[in-house]
Amino acid sequence: MTKRVAMILSGCGVYDGAEIHEATLSMLALDQAGYAVEFFAPDVDQMHVINHMTGDEMNETRNVLIESSRITRGKIRPLSEYEVYDFDALYLPGGFGAAKNLCDFAVKGADCTIQNDVMEAVTITHEAGKPIAALCIAPAILAKLFKGAKITLGGASDAATTVQNDLGAHHVQTTHGDVVIDEALNLITSPCYMLDASITQIYDSAQNVVKALEKKLLNA
Amino acid sequence: MTKRVAMILSGCGVYDGAEIHEATLSMLALDQAGYAVEFFAPDVDQMHVINHMTGDEMNETRNVLIESSRITRGKIRPLSEYEVYDFDALYLPGGFGAAKNLCDFAVKGADCTIQNDVMEAVTITHEAGKPIAALCIAPAILAKLFKGAKITLGGASDAATTVQNDLGAHHVQTTHGDVVIDEALNLITSPCYMLDASITQIYDSAQNVVKALEKKLLNA
Repeated sequence: MTKRVAMILSGCGVYDGAEIHEATLSMLALDQAGYAVEFFAPDVDQMHVINHMTGDEMNETRNVLIESSRITRGKIRPLSEYEVYDFDALYLPGGFGAAKNLCDFAVKGADCTIQNDVMEAVTITHEAGKPIAALCIAPAILAKLFKGAKITLGGASDAATTVQNDLGAHHVQTTHGDVVIDEALNLITSPCYMLDASITQIYDSAQNVVKALEKKLLNA
Repeated sequence: MTKRVAMILSGCGVYDGAEIHEATLSMLALDQAGYAVEFFAPDVDQMHVINHMTGDEMNETRNVLIESSRITRGKIRPLSEYEVYDFDALYLPGGFGAAKNLCDFAVKGADCTIQNDVMEAVTITHEAGKPIAALCIAPAILAKLFKGAKITLGGASDAATTVQNDLGAHHVQTTHGDVVIDEALNLITSPCYMLDASITQIYDSAQNVVKALEKKLLNA
């Protein structure tokens, strides 16, 4: 039986949405390993729209679900339609969208609120005993939801300090391609563009995350 | 000396811009082969903005250069700044943006006009004897600019018939991962998502295009 992975996207573009390389190379690594991947995103407005050339905010409103569908060539559903029994694992690529649209960690830090559909999807997946993979800044969501989660956000950073000191996470410092596994909570995390990485290093991370996922699913 | 490739993007998203997987996986294949890649896009408005979930046109205006910068994490320049002597090759991923924003082949067919900066960049690269790679629908630009160009747009299609019958191109039917090389005109083309392809097949194509490029540059 083909294993099925649900990927949650947060828009389209690193500064206000899902990181495009992390999402695309995760899709590639999952496809190469024989997984069927389906896509979800919350049907909400983005926190804001950023001109990726200048870093300035643009006077526009964009929808997280609609923008995410650019990465998936149209194939995506509202995250409210996620059914845990249809999938073997949940997978969250990073990008600021994970910390701006899936939750507001980017502005509220430890006091962040997790978007309702995201909280529901992550929680029920966890309760069903299924693994959750998260890249880049997305592990902050896991740190907020699971007390004492062992995760990585890469090297030393304000974000790492916040999850460690204020959320009580066990933050593991990592470098390119590293994967941190919380066996008890069934979490797989990797730093990706939390580090100053090349696109080849992002692909390495994605492949290593998928290998870790495969090991977990074989043992499930 | 590191070889340098200039990649021309046409927005961000298959239906109105650059195909995200083709662009990302080309970046990966080029990085893995040791190329330095720089990015360019014309500083013009997109032909239109498409909701990728529904296929409907949205009442918005977006700029090709600004949207392309989402794929490149900000690193991109206006195509008018392209200097041929800085680069060893030119590389055009596909997506409808190549046929809507880099030219208007998608609506005008053989009577299409090539956007000025694109025409200039492609023409001077060709005149400098440097190879040009193009994926998916982007080879239509080469068919328009170079009489009798040997290219591929995948299998039988209206687009293939148009370039063959109306533009006088030599269209070669291809399948997944195939690469067509026009030795005389120094062109490398591959069908990618002109076929109903998996993301792994797009990566195969990107790797094969880079291999063909490498062979050309070694012999240059």
